[in-house]
Amino acid sequence: MPWTRRHLITLEELSLAEIDQIHATATAFKKILGRSVKKVPALRGKTIVNLFLEPSTRTRMAFDMAAKRLSADVISLDGASSSTTKGETLRDTAENIQALNADMIIIRHAASGSPLYLSNILDIPVINAGDGAHEHPTQGLLDTFTMKEHLGSLKGRKVVILGDILFSRVARSNIHALTKMGANVTLVGPATLVPHWFTDLGVKVSHDLKSALADAEVVMLLRIQHERQSSGHFPSLGEYTSMFGLNKTRASWLNPKAIIMHPGPINRGVEIDSELADGDRSVILEQVSNGIAVRMAVLYLCSGGQPESVVTTD
Amino acid sequence: MPWTRRHLITLEELSLAEIDQIHATATAFKKILGRSVKKVPALRGKTIVNLFLEPSTRTRMAFDMAAKRLSADVISLDGASSSTTKGETLRDTAENIQALNADMIIIRHAASGSPLYLSNILDIPVINAGDGAHEHPTQGLLDTFTMKEHLGSLKGRKVVILGDILFSRVARSNIHALTKMGANVTLVGPATLVPHWFTDLGVKVSHDLKSALADAEVVMLLRIQHERQSSGHFPSLGEYTSMFGLNKTRASWLNPKAIIMHPGPINRGVEIDSELADGDRSVILEQVSNGIAVRMAVLYLCSGGQPESVVTTD
Amino acid sequence: MPWTRRHLITLEELSLAEIDQIHATATAFKKILGRSVKKVPALRGKTIVNLFLEPSTRTRMAFDMAAKRLSADVISLDGASSSTTKGETLRDTAENIQALNADMIIIRHAASGSPLYLSNILDIPVINAGDGAHEHPTQGLLDTFTMKEHLGSLKGRKVVILGDILFSRVARSNIHALTKMGANVTLVGPATLVPHWFTDLGVKVSHDLKSALADAEVVMLLRIQHERQSSGHFPSLGEYTSMFGLNKTRASWLNPKAIIMHPGPINRGVEIDSELADGDRSVILEQVSNGIAVRMAVLYLCSGGQPESVVTTD
Repeated sequence: MPWTRRHLITLEELSLAEIDQIHATATAFKKILGRSVKKVPALRGKTIVNLFLEPSTRTRMAFDMAAKRLSADVISLDGASSSTTKGETLRDTAENIQALNADMIIIRHAASGSPLYLSNILDIPVINAGDGAHEHPTQGLLDTFTMKEHLGSLKGRKVVILGDILFSRVARSNIHALTKMGANVTLVGPATLVPHWFTDLGVKVSHDLKSALADAEVVMLLRIQHERQSSGHFPSLGEYTSMFGLNKTRASWLNPKAIIMHPGPINRGVEIDSELADGDRSVILEQVSNGIAVRMAVLYLCSGGQPESVVTTD
Repeated sequence: MPWTRRHLITLEELSLAEIDQIHATATAFKKILGRSVKKVPALRGKTIVNLFLEPSTRTRMAFDMAAKRLSADVISLDGASSSTTKGETLRDTAENIQALNADMIIIRHAASGSPLYLSNILDIPVINAGDGAHEHPTQGLLDTFTMKEHLGSLKGRKVVILGDILFSRVARSNIHALTKMGANVTLVGPATLVPHWFTDLGVKVSHDLKSALADAEVVMLLRIQHERQSSGHFPSLGEYTSMFGLNKTRASWLNPKAIIMHPGPINRGVEIDSELADGDRSVILEQVSNGIAVRMAVLYLCSGGQPESVVTTD
Repeated sequence: MPWTRRHLITLEELSLAEIDQIHATATAFKKILGRSVKKVPALRGKTIVNLFLEPSTRTRMAFDMAAKRLSADVISLDGASSSTTKGETLRDTAENIQALNADMIIIRHAASGSPLYLSNILDIPVINAGDGAHEHPTQGLLDTFTMKEHLGSLKGRKVVILGDILFSRVARSNIHALTKMGANVTLVGPATLVPHWFTDLGVKVSHDLKSALADAEVVMLLRIQHERQSSGHFPSLGEYTSMFGLNKTRASWLNPKAIIMHPGPINRGVEIDSELADGDRSVILEQVSNGIAVRMAVLYLCSGGQPESVVTTD
């Protein structure tokens, strides 16, 4: 089946076959690229614009590294230095970037739906690098890629997502990918942050950490977003940690081979103890590393590349 | 005639022949570069420093893309991250950049005259990317390039520049280029922003929009700079829009084939209605695209390239 | 003797032989690179991350230019745009950068010891670009490199370092390099900023400018850091300038062939008069230029290159 999609906006709209194609392409890139081969010429001469209107270290840098490994040029625009400070609309900023002959836009924006909006206006591919509390599709793709490396098929596997689900674009993207891949997903956290209606997405909702973690093979923690606390939705950090923070005792309730995941940045001692974050079962840094191959796959496919024809020589 | 100029500081000092040479070189680059050929090797190995001490999206990015298409490396310095925050003088910052073996400096600065000042101190080429309310020469070059693409020779053509002329470096650069090219230029706007002494530059000044627009073949709008309003020079935004904002009725006074221009960023609904900004007669995004070829021409010529020897193969 | 060090954290820990190796390698790069040859392929395909958590123009840009001349890719992260604004620990930021397959980290940080800390955690080379008031080793290397270009061997040469020694990482790195190289170093300045215990480092301490400058062959000025003044350690700027600012009269006390150095950025009229900063004896801009070759040498050696095998062709 050829790859036909030009934008990556959500995992909700991807088919299982498309997720598999991205993962297979990422596997191919991961095999090629190591300490010896550093770049493939797939996107040579193309210019990719990183339009990051919210702060980011790892996502922006991972897209930057992925683009450079495909031999593309990268131009980064952030909120502070761009004309958005002069009151320009997002549409005008994006149309200008396209008029400047950019070949692709990667956008992070505080407003849910802004990447979709741009994809309807622009002729060049638009990649969603996180839009509000909506989706963060490449994070969902790299998370499921990492799970597959450890567990093989995710069919029937028990995955727990723990924390601030309500405001998490990472949770939403993972939920869509995991349910398509056949995993049994349980969302856990305080009732204000894990409302019951999430069950409409084909997942379980629990507020009892012990029973939820029992025999789970994956536990994915989410970053507690301090800035949400003033909203009244959130317990205090101390309350959260005492009730839901992952510590050694609670980790013992997991399946002995379970892996611990976190999209970063971590609040050590809040959602997870340092001992666990840095321990044997943590795959947090593997997630980061896999983000490059997965994003290379996304940039490559949305630029017109095909899964079976990954170019391997420079 | 060989190109001999090493800096681009103003359009006031350029001859008509020099403007024509830049436009011809830009035409050559525009022909070469398309979706297939992405780069020419003209400035391979050279390092160009973008020293932007005022915010910018399109100008900074257009220079960046132009430099990369000439195969140069680009280093961007902005006000926030540079030693200017430690109280270093502009002269010392620039001399340091030169000592670091940069091959060219592109500077945007709030102070009129700062690019000229640097060009008198430095051995490397200095390109003015906008200095205070003085000049923005590459904008004037790309605007007139775009007009020529639509109208052919500008000799005897009626061009209206509408808006905040007094504080506009874009207006000044366009006035110098257009009068040298033989266009009939009329400046229009509130009397406080379009003072009568502009007639000394060989242009007409009008405060009557209807008669000014009659039969105009080009109307160039300027961005209304909100930050000027506190100066007392400026009517309120509502007053401005009601008296001078371009809407469908007023656009009907133009020559039927007239083009509508704007250097961006646009204030939609203030100086121009969205319907016109996005309409058939708008060439606003063409201006942006042409900015790359025109800036490639400027960087190429000021680095010692010659109009007749544009290198076309990589 | 082969080069074996993978990190550059301090000059205190380098041997004289290692300093000589870096200088010899820098000399080789300086010879190769001129206006014709622009790049060597030594680090082609490698990605170097500039993690600058304090503002900088010349050091960041010099590392950037050095890396590009070695054909490496450079990714810059500064404090404002990175996840450190989300409360991430430095350790996590650095481990993430490593997980993103960066090949080397260059770090500037306000906390003394942070580069050492990272070098103990990471597998990739860590280069100290200035840590608090501790060390700035590449500055010390380029300063001594510049002195050797003018004076030959530094053995027995009288070098005066003048100004805010107490808070200066530049002074510390130079003291370690100069004493290993056999120079006679005298530190001069107000007693609050040049405490007597510096003599433990094998240097003289003086508060009498005239006798200290007598026959000195090098005088290295340090930047007066305005932000320190509130600390109570510092005399007012006017007091400092009247007592220790370098002016024409005081410069006449130096050896007639003495050179004047400053790591920049300069406070003109405070620690040095403009006449001297821009005069014949000033080597301030040579220091800046030499910073590229010296940093190329450091990046090259810490990446596994050897002094005798500098790659010279692309």
